[in-house]
Amino acid sequence: MSQLRRCLVSGRWVIISPKRDARPVDFQCPADIVNGRDRCPFCLGQEEKTPPPVMVVPGKPGGPWLVRVVPNKYPALEGLGDPVFEHEGIYQKMPSVGVHEVIVEGSDHDIHLRDLSQTHAVEVIRAYIKRLRELACDKRIAYTMIFKNHGRSAGASLAHPHSQLAGFPMVPFDVEQESQGAHRYRQEYGVCVWCAINKQEIQEHSRLIDEDDGYVLSAPYASRIPFEMSLVPKRHEARFELMDDPAGLARFLQKALRRLDTALKNPAYNLIVHTAPAHAYNEDAFHWHIEILPKIAHIAGFEWGSGLYINTVAPETAAEWLRQVKLS
Amino acid sequence: MSQLRRCLVSGRWVIISPKRDARPVDFQCPADIVNGRDRCPFCLGQEEKTPPPVMVVPGKPGGPWLVRVVPNKYPALEGLGDPVFEHEGIYQKMPSVGVHEVIVEGSDHDIHLRDLSQTHAVEVIRAYIKRLRELACDKRIAYTMIFKNHGRSAGASLAHPHSQLAGFPMVPFDVEQESQGAHRYRQEYGVCVWCAINKQEIQEHSRLIDEDDGYVLSAPYASRIPFEMSLVPKRHEARFELMDDPAGLARFLQKALRRLDTALKNPAYNLIVHTAPAHAYNEDAFHWHIEILPKIAHIAGFEWGSGLYINTVAPETAAEWLRQVKLS
Repeated sequence: MSQLRRCLVSGRWVIISPKRDARPVDFQCPADIVNGRDRCPFCLGQEEKTPPPVMVVPGKPGGPWLVRVVPNKYPALEGLGDPVFEHEGIYQKMPSVGVHEVIVEGSDHDIHLRDLSQTHAVEVIRAYIKRLRELACDKRIAYTMIFKNHGRSAGASLAHPHSQLAGFPMVPFDVEQESQGAHRYRQEYGVCVWCAINKQEIQEHSRLIDEDDGYVLSAPYASRIPFEMSLVPKRHEARFELMDDPAGLARFLQKALRRLDTALKNPAYNLIVHTAPAHAYNEDAFHWHIEILPKIAHIAGFEWGSGLYINTVAPETAAEWLRQVKLS
Repeated sequence: MSQLRRCLVSGRWVIISPKRDARPVDFQCPADIVNGRDRCPFCLGQEEKTPPPVMVVPGKPGGPWLVRVVPNKYPALEGLGDPVFEHEGIYQKMPSVGVHEVIVEGSDHDIHLRDLSQTHAVEVIRAYIKRLRELACDKRIAYTMIFKNHGRSAGASLAHPHSQLAGFPMVPFDVEQESQGAHRYRQEYGVCVWCAINKQEIQEHSRLIDEDDGYVLSAPYASRIPFEMSLVPKRHEARFELMDDPAGLARFLQKALRRLDTALKNPAYNLIVHTAPAHAYNEDAFHWHIEILPKIAHIAGFEWGSGLYINTVAPETAAEWLRQVKLS
């Protein structure tokens, strides 16, 4: 029997409509290969194929670099200027000023974030934080988002492990909605919605996937897609860029990604870092978190037309399967 | 150079970031085959494989039926009852009461809507209208949506040409947003936003794909995805189910779908009929329309995290390519 569930933050409803007799293997869906080492612009020795880096984390003396942050060669947002509305008849447009960067997570084409050495993975998280802090001082930028596309069906056009950073001239629609929703919850209940969620998930356990001293990994109550995961720090903090535990996060995140890899055999996924917008409604209301969205289902007319997602795996089932994964 | 454009109805921004030197052939992406005639529950002679029909349009005496409307065997929404909120700790849920039906568009596994005889295609449109009118009297249903998934990447799980109908116990989030946006525009400018769009598109011509006495087909100014098409009637009418020209619409819609098929070689697509919610803010503000969304690009972390779409084909380019298609 299907069930409608509501996301506490956005207010959106989701239809949980589990397939009967489904097993984890039915959802295994290896990410399609995007490209090989040939002509990969992110590989060691190919550095001249990207624009000059805005940041490089060196490795051991004489060894390869660990992380390189470069401007996106095909930026969706770029350049200086004021984000001023212009009219085209009845329509509105503005120049897409902003920043669009690529965070190359290592010099090796085939080593994913989940499999990097822990010291190396920490440098990736540190690079996220450093660029977010630097761009916080950039007057053009109203919001900066870190995200990652793994696999072609998640939108990756290059296989070499990398994340991206987008600096927007306005707070994007969905970020604004999330910030407003969190503010509403704080007003009504007097607590941060993510703190409340952490509390219930730890207590109830059915959707909990993993937990340590610093972080909670769970399958959201109103998961839009099968095996959606939410990583929330236990400490209330609005801004990801102000967190001071990159090592703890790297370890916990790598484990989460290895879990997903083992359960679904290297699925395509998107990872999104949600941090408070610069002028958040209420900093007490926002709590940074990371969303991991495996791409094993298609978005159909139902979702496009209504904004309601149909999820064929109950989050309790997804959490159970993901909890049981044996990590080597 | 990229550009931010705003959707007049939803207020959402879209990034138009055209690929340089792209040609139509770069976007051809035939829909992947979903299943053959074997064990297809929608084929002639397999009628016992579906639940009993709620509606059948007979063909010529002794010939096959033309349209069959059956309950969805795996409904996302079903059954009677009140859509009452229940609590699960801090969360909210409700039973997913409603209706989920399949409109089988013909008895032949391989004849798509675009290629049906015109008399047959009219019966499909009439079936849409009839079911919408019947469900308008159903007290459980706050909104009914007609949509179509063609091809696996558009979410189809069966290849046999069919549409779907979903009757929701509440007005879905995106429909509510659209209705509110249309209301705001009407308040501010005194005219219907879709009437205003039709006027500008006909005058300006650069995004116009096709036009006849009754309808306008254009590439929306803030198209979220490449080759998005919007079909809007010239006559202001809030409700699709009150339209009285199924023959004219069938002819115009079939032409639009054949155009897409020729330009992009049978791409996967979603089609969504937008009609006013039962208790629309303002019936003068809503104007029914049909959205056709080819599935040739992937939704990536950028879109998931921000709600902003990056579209790599300017709607002016898409319209030009679609206009130039030679239809036999």
